[in-house]
Amino acid sequence: MNELTTFEDIIAAARTLYGHSITTPLLTNKVLDDLLGARVLIKCENLQLTGSFKFRGAFNKVSQATKTKNTKSFVAWSSGNHAQAVAAATSMVGGKAYIVMPSDAPQVKISGTKYYGAEITFYDRNTEIREEIGKQIANEKDASIIPPYDDRYVIAGQGTVGLELCAQALSIDETPDLALIPCGGGGLIAGCGIALRRQFPNILIHPVEPEGFNDTARSLELGKRVQNKVGHSSTCDSLLAPTPGELTFKINSRILSPGKTVTNDEIALAMSFSINHLKLCTEPGGVAALASLLSDRDSYKGKTVVLVLSGGNVDPSTLQFSLSSNLP
Amino acid sequence: MNELTTFEDIIAAARTLYGHSITTPLLTNKVLDDLLGARVLIKCENLQLTGSFKFRGAFNKVSQATKTKNTKSFVAWSSGNHAQAVAAATSMVGGKAYIVMPSDAPQVKISGTKYYGAEITFYDRNTEIREEIGKQIANEKDASIIPPYDDRYVIAGQGTVGLELCAQALSIDETPDLALIPCGGGGLIAGCGIALRRQFPNILIHPVEPEGFNDTARSLELGKRVQNKVGHSSTCDSLLAPTPGELTFKINSRILSPGKTVTNDEIALAMSFSINHLKLCTEPGGVAALASLLSDRDSYKGKTVVLVLSGGNVDPSTLQFSLSSNLP
Repeated sequence: MNELTTFEDIIAAARTLYGHSITTPLLTNKVLDDLLGARVLIKCENLQLTGSFKFRGAFNKVSQATKTKNTKSFVAWSSGNHAQAVAAATSMVGGKAYIVMPSDAPQVKISGTKYYGAEITFYDRNTEIREEIGKQIANEKDASIIPPYDDRYVIAGQGTVGLELCAQALSIDETPDLALIPCGGGGLIAGCGIALRRQFPNILIHPVEPEGFNDTARSLELGKRVQNKVGHSSTCDSLLAPTPGELTFKINSRILSPGKTVTNDEIALAMSFSINHLKLCTEPGGVAALASLLSDRDSYKGKTVVLVLSGGNVDPSTLQFSLSSNLP
Repeated sequence: MNELTTFEDIIAAARTLYGHSITTPLLTNKVLDDLLGARVLIKCENLQLTGSFKFRGAFNKVSQATKTKNTKSFVAWSSGNHAQAVAAATSMVGGKAYIVMPSDAPQVKISGTKYYGAEITFYDRNTEIREEIGKQIANEKDASIIPPYDDRYVIAGQGTVGLELCAQALSIDETPDLALIPCGGGGLIAGCGIALRRQFPNILIHPVEPEGFNDTARSLELGKRVQNKVGHSSTCDSLLAPTPGELTFKINSRILSPGKTVTNDEIALAMSFSINHLKLCTEPGGVAALASLLSDRDSYKGKTVVLVLSGGNVDPSTLQFSLSSNLP
């Protein structure tokens, strides 16, 4: 049941996604390269269908569940990117999606989820437990749960980001020394990590988390899964998982290098840099890897660095605010 | 001397640009397709080196001039995109660029031009003539002029946008019915037009211009080059050429369909749509084709439409303002 994702699962996911997901570009940027004295390869998952990498895992899992279970009804809980992804994937297989979202989710993520035809149930982050609400809906509607990260097929879907990235890096003769990848529950970095390690055995893969939510970094240090302390807040709504996933941590504890942490100010500055120099719109959680790179500019001289911009779903007011940030 | 650009010139330009320019992605977007009932292919030249397509023409011309003339000093006049492009191209061949810019050019374009090492001379749009200043500098510094559009090799460089676009459209089995391309002096649309017509003989190619600056649309109607009337203003700083180029109009008058015009409000709305749904940062002139598409949403049902996002160099304050625009 709870089997670990293999490289072959990622290949199978790529086949399933073919013709449905967008092969997102791997860009380079002269201003960024000059600033760091490095070669930076930027994988643009903010340009993916639904505005984040989450579509890949959701579509792979929904397709697999549609084949193996007798239902096209699906339930998911999410602050917004997984929500939109499950909604879009479900509509593409002609099914019905039920989504449990916090009432303070970004407007752009709520409207995106509605756009793809999902039925939304809102909950209060402080007083209600979303898993309980979701499981109740699953029972009532006879619907299958699509987990946000802790699932063999979801991780395999996210791994196709890494598979594409390897092929694209090789096609321009680049061998990355290290990768910086945003980390919430750990699905993206686990899937990408499997693919990147297969192609580039010596690559160092660092998770990037928001300050106060560095559960993966601390779990890697301690060799066991730990929880985030309560009482913190972060602009990175998509990276606030309370603890590493069971499956994702089994993978990540074998392949990841030490984690990096970014502050809200570093996030705002990276969003501004992304607009002004990369000409890309990113969301706070989606730009975490770039934020880490820009906050530690002297550490990458002469290196080839891969970073994933994992999402672009940001409310205009948040983006407007970040545009007032400038590089010191 | 003043020979017209041929398809073979564009192939030669692609060879010259190989390894220097970015092969920009051709994206599709489900929200946009749904909104129009059409298939829209979006060529992202805002992701080009220096943030606009202008790098292609500039690098091609600078490379050609470096080979045929005994100088690596170049002069250009521009509101900013051609300026940055000539500055970057010149620095890449190890030369020196002198740029004449209006003192009210967007800050982002002034700093971009400085970034690439050019020496800038500012002039007053209302009281000085930039061509005169540029020619004087060319004499003093024994430098070659890199024209913004009316040149065989500049047009050929811009044509590589069309060449790439054809290959990318074919690779996803799409045959465009029409193309919408922003038009200032007409270099981009002339070059792209030659390439698009070669691959897709029946394609309709429409120039898009800002209200008050539709000199190409009116020139096409009258069959001769006419000037814009004075006294207008537009947010599209990159599309304010006073009249079609001599060479560009010779090409464009043979291959273009009637022109389309967009207002400042339509531009702001398209910039906002581009951020929110395409996750791309565009500048006012760069988003003109998308603005035209969104302002006339019922005309494209069942069609396959190509549009070029030609640039992304916008001041944060202008972008912040546009983010308050929403689709009615």
